[in-house]
Amino acid sequence: MKEDLMSKIMDEVMKKMGETEISEVKEEAAKEVKCEEAKSCSLTEFVGTAIGNTIGLVIANVDYNLHELMNIDKKYRSIGIVGGRTGAGPHIFAADEAVKATNSEILLIELPRDTEGGAGHGSLIIFGAEDVSDARRAVEVTLNELERTFGDVYGSSAGHLEFQYTARASYALNKAFGAPIGKSFGITVGAPAAIGVLLADTAVKAANVDVVGYSTPGNGGTSYSNEVILTFSGDSGAVRQSIIAAREVGKQLLSTLSTEELKSSTIPYI
Amino acid sequence: MKEDLMSKIMDEVMKKMGETEISEVKEEAAKEVKCEEAKSCSLTEFVGTAIGNTIGLVIANVDYNLHELMNIDKKYRSIGIVGGRTGAGPHIFAADEAVKATNSEILLIELPRDTEGGAGHGSLIIFGAEDVSDARRAVEVTLNELERTFGDVYGSSAGHLEFQYTARASYALNKAFGAPIGKSFGITVGAPAAIGVLLADTAVKAANVDVVGYSTPGNGGTSYSNEVILTFSGDSGAVRQSIIAAREVGKQLLSTLSTEELKSSTIPYI
Amino acid sequence: MKEDLMSKIMDEVMKKMGETEISEVKEEAAKEVKCEEAKSCSLTEFVGTAIGNTIGLVIANVDYNLHELMNIDKKYRSIGIVGGRTGAGPHIFAADEAVKATNSEILLIELPRDTEGGAGHGSLIIFGAEDVSDARRAVEVTLNELERTFGDVYGSSAGHLEFQYTARASYALNKAFGAPIGKSFGITVGAPAAIGVLLADTAVKAANVDVVGYSTPGNGGTSYSNEVILTFSGDSGAVRQSIIAAREVGKQLLSTLSTEELKSSTIPYI
Repeated sequence: MKEDLMSKIMDEVMKKMGETEISEVKEEAAKEVKCEEAKSCSLTEFVGTAIGNTIGLVIANVDYNLHELMNIDKKYRSIGIVGGRTGAGPHIFAADEAVKATNSEILLIELPRDTEGGAGHGSLIIFGAEDVSDARRAVEVTLNELERTFGDVYGSSAGHLEFQYTARASYALNKAFGAPIGKSFGITVGAPAAIGVLLADTAVKAANVDVVGYSTPGNGGTSYSNEVILTFSGDSGAVRQSIIAAREVGKQLLSTLSTEELKSSTIPYI
Repeated sequence: MKEDLMSKIMDEVMKKMGETEISEVKEEAAKEVKCEEAKSCSLTEFVGTAIGNTIGLVIANVDYNLHELMNIDKKYRSIGIVGGRTGAGPHIFAADEAVKATNSEILLIELPRDTEGGAGHGSLIIFGAEDVSDARRAVEVTLNELERTFGDVYGSSAGHLEFQYTARASYALNKAFGAPIGKSFGITVGAPAAIGVLLADTAVKAANVDVVGYSTPGNGGTSYSNEVILTFSGDSGAVRQSIIAAREVGKQLLSTLSTEELKSSTIPYI
Repeated sequence: MKEDLMSKIMDEVMKKMGETEISEVKEEAAKEVKCEEAKSCSLTEFVGTAIGNTIGLVIANVDYNLHELMNIDKKYRSIGIVGGRTGAGPHIFAADEAVKATNSEILLIELPRDTEGGAGHGSLIIFGAEDVSDARRAVEVTLNELERTFGDVYGSSAGHLEFQYTARASYALNKAFGAPIGKSFGITVGAPAAIGVLLADTAVKAANVDVVGYSTPGNGGTSYSNEVILTFSGDSGAVRQSIIAAREVGKQLLSTLSTEELKSSTIPYI
């Protein structure tokens, strides 16, 4: 009986160890495949991927029908497309840098209700350009900026916080949020929405900022996400001060709902 | 070889055991942290947390700007805020008790599409009061009532059922559902929505109730949740009878989609 | 010490093995329960279940009040109800076959934002019939067809692709998408939405098809899902050609976001 058991134990354990090894090998193989794919996805339309299940694409000559369907000016022969499952603020602030840095226009910004089971939005952003290299460049800049703009996104299983800041808002922020062009601009986001309400109150009390917008789950400013979003512009120091005050409060509040440590998705930049 | 194997087995098993112990310790530590945090969150705005990733907050003196943005009467110097990721019915029925029990008003009830990957809504509820202690009390009552109002919420990975009943509807139920003030009022909710349709038919056939509303994924009564919601008032006995009949049917139907046992989220109260 | 350890190992391993056996037994028991339940759910309204957490129901004599609430013609004494957590295209194309095959009408098609944390829709479809056996038959056909219509749904944790094709569109596709009755009709769906944009461009370039609709997260054609959906009709060969070209591109794009193998939910049919 004991012998028998002993051999059973060994069988079990060896099976386990075998599985582990096999799955490790598979994982490594998978990683290699990913690298290869990312490098070698043979479609000329593919630009790259980024955090938040984000993909960047480009169409050199948009089909005549699609131009009509998208309701965009025919002069934009080429479009750049950036969209992801998780993140709207990070993508819009990243796209704003892309518009500043390239010869492209923001044609469309839409916010699906997503975040893969989370409380917020995904995104779909379309750039227009007369030349495909400009469209591609806009997508590349956006994808690269995401690493930074996810820096002040803090999440747990219970919700998330997001803060964004720019010293000079451009056309993407203007289109998405009505930000005054050329001025310092920031946002605070809290989910569940109750936290976002307090962040908004904290932000407007912390410094002398001009409120641009206030979005809630039901007032049309969100796609029924469980967020309250405050957007504001003003003096650069004031905008930052408001964000930093709200961020401090937000972290304390979201921490009451979960024991998980609230960490930046990448590296805080504000 | 066998020796070698034996030591490998031991290493593996000991590692496992070690991990278990470490993770147990971590969990306990985490629990303690949570208690401490919940007790000691130093923000005066923090009131408490409850089931459904719900947080309760209070603002003693709402900022002038926020008053405007929220479009609420300036006489409500203080607001109470209750919001969660999972649950709308439970929160609205709980808030209804808070309005009855305190010197506060319901200013806003919004339903984000949430439930953390589930089929339903989260919630954002705002109470107004002239005095901060009244706003705080309204939030406290709501948080406390949630334990009860989650009692007839039954969920599985496939969907959920919700039933609520009150002998006397007040201003929260009136604002959210148009419930006649002072009358007995109930709701049936089924998700996926197909189940909710049959619950509605069952409820209206089971007793002589007055239908107040019927909400579906696409008719504007929900935030695109996968639910059908029937709301009805009438004689107290009739309302309860309708709910109990629908609950019996709902449990049988939802059970066909999953082998999980359908359990109350807390303790059934109807 | 070593003895002691040895017995600990055995205890651990035996516990593990015991658990495994117990959980296996439980699983088997659960499966049996499911079968039994599915077979024996005693409600006459229950028709069956299908992939996507889909349930099919029938009401022989819809309550007078519910007729009013649903805003449906009183002549449809009986209704069939099909709804699920995951899938809208598959359900609508399946319902289209049901309408062709039975003496029933499509009364309502609604798309909740669901897919259980995914990027797309669930569904609620209601058939009307003068006779309950016709309503039941419509539901049965729909549930049976789902196995096929999920064939060109490909998903990973990062998103999904969906392709549907019919040689002859009928009333369900007309109601949901405005498909011209009797003509060949197809759809391409990509999520995250960025992928859907490129699928649309690919489809319209691949063959001479007539675009019927183009839905995005924010243009009202979706319930804020993270999808772009192109619908088109035309010559049967052209419609298929467009779909096949888009499918090829979609698989390559979605594969860049995840190392998971993209597999059909059932068996591809296009």
